[in-house]
Amino acid sequence: MYLDSFRKIALKYRAIFFDAYGVLKNSSGIIPEIAHTFDFLKENNIDFYILTNDASRSPKQLAEFYQKNGIADITMDKIISSGMLAREYLRHKVKDGRVAYIGTKSSAVYLEAMDLVTVPISEIDLNHRHTEEIRVLIMLDDEGFDWQKDLNKAVNLLRRTNVPVIVANTDQTYPVSEDEVAIAVGSIAELLEKVVGKTFIHFGKPDAQMFNFAYQHITRHNNYHKEEVLMVGDTLHTDIIGGNKFGIDTVLVLSGNTIPDQAEFFIKTTGIVPDYICESITT
Amino acid sequence: MYLDSFRKIALKYRAIFFDAYGVLKNSSGIIPEIAHTFDFLKENNIDFYILTNDASRSPKQLAEFYQKNGIADITMDKIISSGMLAREYLRHKVKDGRVAYIGTKSSAVYLEAMDLVTVPISEIDLNHRHTEEIRVLIMLDDEGFDWQKDLNKAVNLLRRTNVPVIVANTDQTYPVSEDEVAIAVGSIAELLEKVVGKTFIHFGKPDAQMFNFAYQHITRHNNYHKEEVLMVGDTLHTDIIGGNKFGIDTVLVLSGNTIPDQAEFFIKTTGIVPDYICESITT
Amino acid sequence: MYLDSFRKIALKYRAIFFDAYGVLKNSSGIIPEIAHTFDFLKENNIDFYILTNDASRSPKQLAEFYQKNGIADITMDKIISSGMLAREYLRHKVKDGRVAYIGTKSSAVYLEAMDLVTVPISEIDLNHRHTEEIRVLIMLDDEGFDWQKDLNKAVNLLRRTNVPVIVANTDQTYPVSEDEVAIAVGSIAELLEKVVGKTFIHFGKPDAQMFNFAYQHITRHNNYHKEEVLMVGDTLHTDIIGGNKFGIDTVLVLSGNTIPDQAEFFIKTTGIVPDYICESITT
Amino acid sequence: MYLDSFRKIALKYRAIFFDAYGVLKNSSGIIPEIAHTFDFLKENNIDFYILTNDASRSPKQLAEFYQKNGIADITMDKIISSGMLAREYLRHKVKDGRVAYIGTKSSAVYLEAMDLVTVPISEIDLNHRHTEEIRVLIMLDDEGFDWQKDLNKAVNLLRRTNVPVIVANTDQTYPVSEDEVAIAVGSIAELLEKVVGKTFIHFGKPDAQMFNFAYQHITRHNNYHKEEVLMVGDTLHTDIIGGNKFGIDTVLVLSGNTIPDQAEFFIKTTGIVPDYICESITT
Repeated sequence: MYLDSFRKIALKYRAIFFDAYGVLKNSSGIIPEIAHTFDFLKENNIDFYILTNDASRSPKQLAEFYQKNGIADITMDKIISSGMLAREYLRHKVKDGRVAYIGTKSSAVYLEAMDLVTVPISEIDLNHRHTEEIRVLIMLDDEGFDWQKDLNKAVNLLRRTNVPVIVANTDQTYPVSEDEVAIAVGSIAELLEKVVGKTFIHFGKPDAQMFNFAYQHITRHNNYHKEEVLMVGDTLHTDIIGGNKFGIDTVLVLSGNTIPDQAEFFIKTTGIVPDYICESITT
Repeated sequence: MYLDSFRKIALKYRAIFFDAYGVLKNSSGIIPEIAHTFDFLKENNIDFYILTNDASRSPKQLAEFYQKNGIADITMDKIISSGMLAREYLRHKVKDGRVAYIGTKSSAVYLEAMDLVTVPISEIDLNHRHTEEIRVLIMLDDEGFDWQKDLNKAVNLLRRTNVPVIVANTDQTYPVSEDEVAIAVGSIAELLEKVVGKTFIHFGKPDAQMFNFAYQHITRHNNYHKEEVLMVGDTLHTDIIGGNKFGIDTVLVLSGNTIPDQAEFFIKTTGIVPDYICESITT
Repeated sequence: MYLDSFRKIALKYRAIFFDAYGVLKNSSGIIPEIAHTFDFLKENNIDFYILTNDASRSPKQLAEFYQKNGIADITMDKIISSGMLAREYLRHKVKDGRVAYIGTKSSAVYLEAMDLVTVPISEIDLNHRHTEEIRVLIMLDDEGFDWQKDLNKAVNLLRRTNVPVIVANTDQTYPVSEDEVAIAVGSIAELLEKVVGKTFIHFGKPDAQMFNFAYQHITRHNNYHKEEVLMVGDTLHTDIIGGNKFGIDTVLVLSGNTIPDQAEFFIKTTGIVPDYICESITT
Repeated sequence: MYLDSFRKIALKYRAIFFDAYGVLKNSSGIIPEIAHTFDFLKENNIDFYILTNDASRSPKQLAEFYQKNGIADITMDKIISSGMLAREYLRHKVKDGRVAYIGTKSSAVYLEAMDLVTVPISEIDLNHRHTEEIRVLIMLDDEGFDWQKDLNKAVNLLRRTNVPVIVANTDQTYPVSEDEVAIAVGSIAELLEKVVGKTFIHFGKPDAQMFNFAYQHITRHNNYHKEEVLMVGDTLHTDIIGGNKFGIDTVLVLSGNTIPDQAEFFIKTTGIVPDYICESITT
């Protein structure tokens, strides 16, 4: 397996999408030395954005982590999260009524900009008339509610009223320490979807809508061709297949989910082939 | 759609398997008038058993419900539950060590007969050396544990140790009132299975092992041919397809999951065809 | 179920996406009277496009059908087919080498514009050195190859070489007469995907990339907001969920797949809710 | 990974189930030296049976292969194939009418014993009145019919008439040479099942009905406890999980599908744990 130098590759592009977890940070915090990479990008006038399936925190909160870790260039306008697509959905398709959500109050910030009343699932009373005003159920985070009580409530809400369900994070799990993961809201959404037999709307990598949203975001001011944009990620099934399908070049980094020993095996068995492989973005 | 008289059909068989929920009881309690049907079976010397995907209570507890409701003939030896298959598995495949379980203490009765130490998931400490002695994880019930904390613990347990997981109830939901359901342990098991990427062992209708276990149970004393045994249930995807595949005749009753208006439509779209259709077992 | 007048709805939008089959044509040919609807759109200065998962014929061939049936306004530039996305993929991601395809020579027109050598699956010899030059396998149509011989060849090709597979039509079946359907290439692709265990790239409704491609196509000359665009289709699982997710309004017509008697039932059980329901586009 | 001696293990059991492909034979023919193993079993009075998902040839034809290769003890009564379960189904559930089948004439031998008219899918005319007499469709083999023409015919047959579909081989692929496989009828059945949206009845490992059929077959004359029976196979997802679930001990051999280098990795990632691992049955 041939490993490329990330910097050498980066120089061929005008804009880069970075996955966050496994590329910029891991369970121990920021990945060491990546600040130099961002300096390098700046020097070479290469634009960049963070593309993340995290809908549990606002772009502002997400950016603060990098700021605190000495990467001043990662400001909130550099963050593109799947939570932002939930907001887009509301903007286009929900004009009035109540928005029920599953997640923390902090995750509900994605819904706040709208002129809509947001209600956490825990505060919904299935027998109250307000239930009829619910226009959509949005799944944002695995925290902030009582799994047993509130997921059962969500099931019965969806059996009674026919509202669309938006899932703002398609991930199955997320890491919580070096050797432990937690079940993410994407998995919980699949459980509900199967139980109620309905089709939910899922936002997040590898879905094309996430890449398209990001692409439109960056081409608002600069007219980048797809050939000038690079996706960098640690996960074949989200970052790499999503980037490939969208028509941009892709780099698999081995600093996260895909460990060096198994990279070749996974590429061969999944049929998901990155354009480049790098040890990390610090190379 | 032609509806048969249940009694007329019953007379053609020597033994009958009844599903419990939707056939003998519903969210309001025992289905009225079924006591007469059991009298009729007795008079005509037709044997019967209850085949249920309920692993949350012991056969003794399950039988008590019928006893209290005036059907003295439904004794604990008439109950065949999917929880009994979990016990069978332990008997054949687990000789020593600890059995971790997800469910209530009451459901753990299925594991008690063995000379094994049983540990509820809530009491497992992933960092304690006892974890290494766990030989199997058994999923029995959706109650008796903290969903968020303990399901995440189960995920990390299964990432660290390679033990088989037994699911003693394959149902997706169960009814809790006339218009509400609850998520059953079968759905929770599928969530874990997907998240950890492993293959669990599932017991319960429509799986052939459940029907075979029941058939062996009843032929211990009487040599029934399969042609002499009838399966009666309210659910096409468990009772009817399972009975058909096992090679016994099947009756769909319309007193539960499958409502009269949609019976024909569901039979046509699923391709699961019962041998007979009856309004209920009281006809 | 309240049925809207299509014309009344149309007047609220500036551009309309029409699904083809079940909306404009059916197994008997063009749906009667729809020519008047296109006159109406012209008079009212409402733009329109045909959004189809058909990759078996070129936009030119697809347009000819409408031309022959007296709808002169449906010209080839009005056709947006999933086959065009396969061409986009090649344009962005494949620079040289050979493109293997499954489908008719006629469907291969989608690949022709490129400076690439195209080879039908039937002409591939797994033991020839040319096989190493294959960069991608594209599935276009269910016709034009020997299913048994060539699908087995595709399986063994994908076991030997690690090339991406592009599926240019996600449909499961298509109608061939009033009461018969044929297996579409989307189903065949899923068979191969399961057998080789790899992840293919699928293009076509309901995928966001199809809607995005269409939206970019129409906004090249006119700056339509999403609120000004309407999707009209006969299938909940492709046209309606796809349009809803993309953030545009949707009309379900009852002139195709979704028959009037079952429309309400299907909307309720799938949770896919169109903004409007019309008998057909002639109302 | 500790490798056991197969003979040492065998001595602990009274009866052994052998998978055929990857255990007794491979693409080059019989696996060398296994005749000695069968001599060893005979000397030690250990009974054995071949458990195979092959429904394309009769037990007699399957046994002939071993006879020709010098293993006289593998007679036709030692063969237990998934095709035999299809025959059992007919025996119990189909009393009259026509049986349509997909497969070769040779595979139809499984249906012959019955007093039923068997019709290959190729000879069915959907518009003939005989179609109404079809009681079941049985899928036996991937050979003997025109895939494109006859699979489309099967789809339309199943849309018109509501007959159960029996799949007599659940395998996805089978090897045809050292480095090529062919799509098996199990994969084809899944394609049809998805296209018509119906639930088929599948027979074959890992399904419990196959193990139960085999177990009843061998206990007809000898009263073996499950603890006295051993399953030997090369595939975790069929032989090993099936044997484990049925409650018998299991041996994974590394002479077929599961190659030595990856055995530990696959056991760990699938969670399917054999009781023993042997290089082959000749050890």
